[in-house]
Amino acid sequence: MTRTLTSHYRWMAKAIRLARQGRNTTSPNPRVGCIIVDDNDTQIGAGYHIQAGTPHAEIHALKQAGSQARGATVYVTLEPCSHYGRTPPCANALIDAGVRCVVVAMTDPNPNVSGNGIRRLQEAGIEVVTDIMAAEAADLNPGFIKRMVTGKPRVRVKMATSLDGKIALENGVSQWITGPDARRDVQRYRAQSCAIVTGSGTVKADNPSLLVRPEEAQLSDYPLDTIRQPIRVVVDAADALGRDYQCFQDGYPTYLATITRQADSEGNAYRLELPAANGKLDLSALMSELGAMQINEVWVEAGPGLVGALFMAEEVDELICYQAGKLLGDKARSMVNFPSFSSLSSTPSLSLMDVRSVGDDIRLHYRVEKPGQHNTTEK
Amino acid sequence: MTRTLTSHYRWMAKAIRLARQGRNTTSPNPRVGCIIVDDNDTQIGAGYHIQAGTPHAEIHALKQAGSQARGATVYVTLEPCSHYGRTPPCANALIDAGVRCVVVAMTDPNPNVSGNGIRRLQEAGIEVVTDIMAAEAADLNPGFIKRMVTGKPRVRVKMATSLDGKIALENGVSQWITGPDARRDVQRYRAQSCAIVTGSGTVKADNPSLLVRPEEAQLSDYPLDTIRQPIRVVVDAADALGRDYQCFQDGYPTYLATITRQADSEGNAYRLELPAANGKLDLSALMSELGAMQINEVWVEAGPGLVGALFMAEEVDELICYQAGKLLGDKARSMVNFPSFSSLSSTPSLSLMDVRSVGDDIRLHYRVEKPGQHNTTEK
Repeated sequence: MTRTLTSHYRWMAKAIRLARQGRNTTSPNPRVGCIIVDDNDTQIGAGYHIQAGTPHAEIHALKQAGSQARGATVYVTLEPCSHYGRTPPCANALIDAGVRCVVVAMTDPNPNVSGNGIRRLQEAGIEVVTDIMAAEAADLNPGFIKRMVTGKPRVRVKMATSLDGKIALENGVSQWITGPDARRDVQRYRAQSCAIVTGSGTVKADNPSLLVRPEEAQLSDYPLDTIRQPIRVVVDAADALGRDYQCFQDGYPTYLATITRQADSEGNAYRLELPAANGKLDLSALMSELGAMQINEVWVEAGPGLVGALFMAEEVDELICYQAGKLLGDKARSMVNFPSFSSLSSTPSLSLMDVRSVGDDIRLHYRVEKPGQHNTTEK
Repeated sequence: MTRTLTSHYRWMAKAIRLARQGRNTTSPNPRVGCIIVDDNDTQIGAGYHIQAGTPHAEIHALKQAGSQARGATVYVTLEPCSHYGRTPPCANALIDAGVRCVVVAMTDPNPNVSGNGIRRLQEAGIEVVTDIMAAEAADLNPGFIKRMVTGKPRVRVKMATSLDGKIALENGVSQWITGPDARRDVQRYRAQSCAIVTGSGTVKADNPSLLVRPEEAQLSDYPLDTIRQPIRVVVDAADALGRDYQCFQDGYPTYLATITRQADSEGNAYRLELPAANGKLDLSALMSELGAMQINEVWVEAGPGLVGALFMAEEVDELICYQAGKLLGDKARSMVNFPSFSSLSSTPSLSLMDVRSVGDDIRLHYRVEKPGQHNTTEK
């Protein structure tokens, strides 16, 4: 049977939906989905990757298909691996199962191994079809892909503002500018992130836990018994925060990004010492460090100072702004601190990916096109 | 033939679309559309009101229908008038034509005459159906309706901002934060407005004409040979502006709202002297004055000071914000100046009516729910 392109798209779309079920738990691995279909276009196996160290999507699907896999067609959202990691290579398992055709949405983003899995399948006489819904498959793993290519994680900055871009009144009052639906949405972004970055000012002002609150996030179909919590990173150049804040005391790991050099003796903070040549904290080095720690997706919940510095350091990939139908006025606190630009062409420029209502607020999701023209070590 | 409700909605929707063709030209009259349908549900007449002093929608439609109007059904977006104004009453014309049924979307918003037209039709033995698409018909004439009910015009404030609510860099540079599509959209709002209100700061900074530029507005199906230009109102409490600015020199009328009392001797400015008890300019009195001048819809293109004062005076009905995907930072100029609020509950609150892409920008259209808790004479 020769399959039509329509059939390819239909099954790949389903594999992508499956992959999304792993969105909160696969890291540092990518989210991957797999469907196996027999010659009558009937599904005989399906699976998705749940957690690093456990079987990949293809292995789940092959197990379900059993001996029917012989001669079948496999849809997989990412090129099957060809290397021995914590689990044996999926390419070998597909060859051993005797499948006839493998349809791959996108090749492995790691430039060192990209194409190896496909080549091994082809050398074993398996037909390989590529580039079926590649863009949609890439959207599953923006952090993993960026880390494979650049060594750094995907950085999303979250802000909650009034229509006039304010995050608090002059007296600091900010609870609540946006509504409960927006706050629930934030919980879901936290859940899929590997690390939450904040600044010392936010810790001092709000003493937040920055953990996922499952009852608020209302995560459906969560594939594990317990929530995988993101690590927390507090940027505190001077290391001036005490250790009595929630994030240092609740037993979950917190990293302290600082320019000071000394052993940490209190609380549960791990130190990341990142001084730049100019004596400030090197935010680009922080992102490289997080990349080296296999952090795919970073979620920033911080104040105007750290957010501004991240933009100036060109370390922001996306901005997610929850905007309330309120006006706070010129004396209220602005959402982002920048140097005084002399021309509009120097300012950061954003491209709208999505806008939608979230309760009474709207959520604006921007990709950063041009991060602002400035030096790269602020804070 | 008994008509179905579906048929009523279909024809009324068409009458509303017709009425919209008068959106730029009917003021101070309302926009009205009319369709006449025979017993076979075939359209035999249609018309819309174009300009005050010329025939109303019903008269255009009756003329087209001719003798076929006898026994026909008439769809009209606003209750037919029953008084002798610049034209004879439409209720009489419908009675004289011998129509059988009149379907009215909404009654006359003027509390003194509301229902009179319907009563006259009924007394003549004509069946009258009301409240078919009343909300949609009311949307045709938000300014006319507000003026009939309160004596004041509908006030729409326009702003063009960055995502962080800034209208200019610290050095005043603001051209262009938003793009050419947003600017074209503004031209269309100007075209349908009866008056454009601005402040002395904007005149000083930009020396704008504030007129409709037809080639930029690209108004299709314009029913007149020449563009009806809105009047301009410059709020300049101290009367400190010279008369060498474009809006005082181009021959189109401009009103100067001020607290000073003196005869205007230069340029083409008409004076509106509006001091409040506290020595400031009374913006509420300005709106009453514009209402008395039969201004239905006011379009405000002003800076943060005047916009803030209008909000504090509770004189803003809608906010239309063109928001660009840019971040200008805390040192840039905020879109609206307010006093320093001590709690979020005192701040103005807005309700989203519409959001859409306009070129690379988005247009947020808000209704003002709560104008801000403050005294009513600012500026």
